[in-house]
Amino acid sequence: MEPRAPVPHPWATFCAHGGRVAAARAAFGGADWIDLSTGIAPWSWPVDTLAGLDRLPEPAEIAALEAAAARAFGVADPAQVVAVPGTDLAMRLLAPLIGARAPAVRHPGYAGHRAAWPGAELVAEGPGDHDLFVLASPANPDGRLAGPVDLLAAPMTLVLDEAYADPAAGLCPHASDRLIVLRSFGKFYGLPGLRLGFVVAGDRIAGGLRAMLGDWPVSSPAVAIGTAAYRDIAWRRAQASRIVETGALLDTVLHEAGLALAGSAPLFRLVACDDAARLFGTLAHHAILTRPFADRTDRLRIGLPRGATALTRLAAALEEYRS
Amino acid sequence: MEPRAPVPHPWATFCAHGGRVAAARAAFGGADWIDLSTGIAPWSWPVDTLAGLDRLPEPAEIAALEAAAARAFGVADPAQVVAVPGTDLAMRLLAPLIGARAPAVRHPGYAGHRAAWPGAELVAEGPGDHDLFVLASPANPDGRLAGPVDLLAAPMTLVLDEAYADPAAGLCPHASDRLIVLRSFGKFYGLPGLRLGFVVAGDRIAGGLRAMLGDWPVSSPAVAIGTAAYRDIAWRRAQASRIVETGALLDTVLHEAGLALAGSAPLFRLVACDDAARLFGTLAHHAILTRPFADRTDRLRIGLPRGATALTRLAAALEEYRS
Repeated sequence: MEPRAPVPHPWATFCAHGGRVAAARAAFGGADWIDLSTGIAPWSWPVDTLAGLDRLPEPAEIAALEAAAARAFGVADPAQVVAVPGTDLAMRLLAPLIGARAPAVRHPGYAGHRAAWPGAELVAEGPGDHDLFVLASPANPDGRLAGPVDLLAAPMTLVLDEAYADPAAGLCPHASDRLIVLRSFGKFYGLPGLRLGFVVAGDRIAGGLRAMLGDWPVSSPAVAIGTAAYRDIAWRRAQASRIVETGALLDTVLHEAGLALAGSAPLFRLVACDDAARLFGTLAHHAILTRPFADRTDRLRIGLPRGATALTRLAAALEEYRS
Repeated sequence: MEPRAPVPHPWATFCAHGGRVAAARAAFGGADWIDLSTGIAPWSWPVDTLAGLDRLPEPAEIAALEAAAARAFGVADPAQVVAVPGTDLAMRLLAPLIGARAPAVRHPGYAGHRAAWPGAELVAEGPGDHDLFVLASPANPDGRLAGPVDLLAAPMTLVLDEAYADPAAGLCPHASDRLIVLRSFGKFYGLPGLRLGFVVAGDRIAGGLRAMLGDWPVSSPAVAIGTAAYRDIAWRRAQASRIVETGALLDTVLHEAGLALAGSAPLFRLVACDDAARLFGTLAHHAILTRPFADRTDRLRIGLPRGATALTRLAAALEEYRS
């Protein structure tokens, strides 16, 4: 084994989560940062109003949001779809509701899964002798999709995190108390600061979660914006096209820089590299933030650049890394 | 005992929570409803932008929000102040963290306390033989303040809901893991739809709650607006004056209508009346929504009207009730 390369001091900060632009600016200086450290779409659904902050969302408004989301997810019964203030928090509420004796979490995977089920065994393949299996599809960071072997396992509960499945319906239409599906609003719609997500489940879990969340599970802007955005079919189609087209451009830039893909999802690419710390540092010195992983020094996750300028800057920075 | 008066069909809806204006419009018709059914200030801190929705709040921004709130609450150590997406949800997260064996909840009191501690005994006076006592100060709906007998009880934990204590510091400076204080942002600042509140506690509870909430406990607008509003001392003073002055005008209107007060807090009045269902119905037919209680047909809670027009409409409707 070669010794590990020295890493920048705040490395752990950037390995914990994406989106830490202020920390990057403090660590590396620079201005006009491009944030490619998340799997969040770089185009946001156009928010034009802040209506409703001066009052609490009413039950009928939350029901309308859940109905709009249910249609987008292909779920016939909106009662199965529970609006939550981010799936990250929802998972922590789900854990005691599900009450598994021997949970397993897919590894590698999203750190939030391990945080919600701290006692879970980390497993690379099927769930084996567990009564709960938590995995994402597409997975983060490698984009892997859940396959039949994951879904048709022995008697158990599956928590399927489809945070990156948009705009596909994914497995939401098949959700039940044994197949609990999580959906994120903010990633595809480019509005993660809104804190809006959904849990799709059967009566027991959906009802239990609603009881835990109380009468105002999400903010008024989340209700108004989420309802309007899920109804906006034209924007949804346009966003899906932008994501696919920009992903293809990103693939070309990465390929021309000699970087192979170790994984891929519509909203991010996982690149294989000799030295992720050096690649991360080189890009950071060009004010481009990417997502490293503490336990994988040969992988770096790169999100979608917003446009031609960002792509050109990324290509130039990658050129320096190669040379 | 006289038989109870017939009540409007959706009575239970209006007894569950205030703020159900859409339900009131559906039940009673009318337009231009005045909502006096909540304890929310009718003037909102002026929000001019919804910046930050396109990214996740960063740790330093959440820390700045908690520091601004700590200064407003008179708490020396901001680590004691935890931002939460509404205290209603926070209470449900606190319950298992505190882990009381024999909790008690003050009655009458806020329904959310009973929802968070469904097994709690309802007690009118001091906590007796319990290891946890949950009460609000000022109480809702009667405005009663917690007294020394509540606070200096036998070895136990106290959850003190100071949702209506603004702009006073209340007991926040004395918070610990045995005196856990809840604060609401939206009521005093007139922005309940933002879903922002705080739990002030000692290291164990504050740390445990942060771990449960994860890295994005509240939305980006909540972070930006909350931080700016808590720093806005001039607006805070002006709001406190408006609340006191309008409360005095409301008292006059209620007195002239022959209604005695059964309780009072800066943001609401609890009136004593012979027949709350009739008073609620009369006001509703004037498109004025107030807050009835399922178990008290001789009480109605009335919030602050926003200005002279609303006060005049309330006075006219009360005149009809008298005659």
